[in-house]
Amino acid sequence: MPEHTVASFDQELKEIGRKVVEMGGQAERLVADSVTSLIKRDIALAQKVVLVDATVDQMQREIEDRAILVIAKRQPVANDLREIVSAIRIANDLERIGDLAKNVGKRVIAIEGEYHPQKLVRGVEHISDLVLEQLKEVLDAYAARNEAKAVEVWGRDGAIDTMYTSLFRELLTYMMEDPRNISVCTHLLFCAKNIERIGDHATNIAEIVYYMVSGQNLPDRPKADASSETTLAFPGRSVQG
Amino acid sequence: MPEHTVASFDQELKEIGRKVVEMGGQAERLVADSVTSLIKRDIALAQKVVLVDATVDQMQREIEDRAILVIAKRQPVANDLREIVSAIRIANDLERIGDLAKNVGKRVIAIEGEYHPQKLVRGVEHISDLVLEQLKEVLDAYAARNEAKAVEVWGRDGAIDTMYTSLFRELLTYMMEDPRNISVCTHLLFCAKNIERIGDHATNIAEIVYYMVSGQNLPDRPKADASSETTLAFPGRSVQG
Repeated sequence: MPEHTVASFDQELKEIGRKVVEMGGQAERLVADSVTSLIKRDIALAQKVVLVDATVDQMQREIEDRAILVIAKRQPVANDLREIVSAIRIANDLERIGDLAKNVGKRVIAIEGEYHPQKLVRGVEHISDLVLEQLKEVLDAYAARNEAKAVEVWGRDGAIDTMYTSLFRELLTYMMEDPRNISVCTHLLFCAKNIERIGDHATNIAEIVYYMVSGQNLPDRPKADASSETTLAFPGRSVQG
Repeated sequence: MPEHTVASFDQELKEIGRKVVEMGGQAERLVADSVTSLIKRDIALAQKVVLVDATVDQMQREIEDRAILVIAKRQPVANDLREIVSAIRIANDLERIGDLAKNVGKRVIAIEGEYHPQKLVRGVEHISDLVLEQLKEVLDAYAARNEAKAVEVWGRDGAIDTMYTSLFRELLTYMMEDPRNISVCTHLLFCAKNIERIGDHATNIAEIVYYMVSGQNLPDRPKADASSETTLAFPGRSVQG
């Protein structure tokens, strides 16, 4: 390629990368705001989350369009192709993260005014802290092209899954103790599941960053989420793991 | 392009399309099997669903890799580019559909042997019938490049959402009536939500098919799913919509 073409291709790659970082920041804010709205019962903030998710969707479309255009125009190979394909994939995960945060926001609005002891949300708060940390770290790993950091994030996925499985049981217990908790706890179960899935997407992004930087795939993910397989039988019946 | 190049490009497009159709058939079977395993409490079938999902994931990767390669090699524009980008997007939705079916399978395994009156799954069966029909139709619309059929599928999304919202309330009622139902109903709520989301992905695919064939976007989707906003307050409290 002539030198000016190389330079402007480089510019295009950088621009796509910049957009992914920007989108990551926006998605991260959405998740943080959705969790804050849940813990503080801040309905106005929850409504904002529901609205702002549309901008994350828009960003995903822009990144995808631009990336496809660059692939067609520049026919990139090796590192450059990995960089662009990774941008498409990360934007896809970030869009899903935005959707999940939006769903948390909707549920916060739903349970407004319901019987709602603060202890019920404490477990959700803990898992959210961990997930937000993972999301922040993996976005840093992407921005810095740091594969070691991506592997660190990837290795911590199991902790979130374990926490979610125990939270799942805890919320079922609250429902059994007091039927007034059933409606709120059901929404909290979905909120917790959404947040756990945000953690899964952070792990996906870690895998993509690793692939982008190294050209290699990480091995199969160690899964510790047993909640789909978890039941809390009625007292007197055996508990299945 | 020289004639033989055009012919082989055509061949590549057709091959990608064929793979998407094949993947659609596989995803459809997974969904049908997961629902059957739930209704018949067929653990062996549920286990098969959990295993077979990996082949759907593999198909998605193949379609994406091949599509990116064709974009880089052929620099397609207009119709051809839309065709390839649509294949990537549909494969993405189908992969998510496979994941959701797999999660239903996991939950079927979880609730084996639990107190589990058959009436509890009846509502899930109804919504599944509707979703499977939507999925089948939209895959037909894709295979036939039939935009009118895509619009029909798209327009029926609201019916699934309405049914899901009512099922959500029904399952909460069963939990409140008898705490022995709480554990199973919680898993059924997640199954129902998964199936409703499969319906959402079918609607996404309808939008993609419409865009692929016409080059236009459908307007914003009419949403009728109010379950995130639905609570069923404890008897004696007001019901919030």
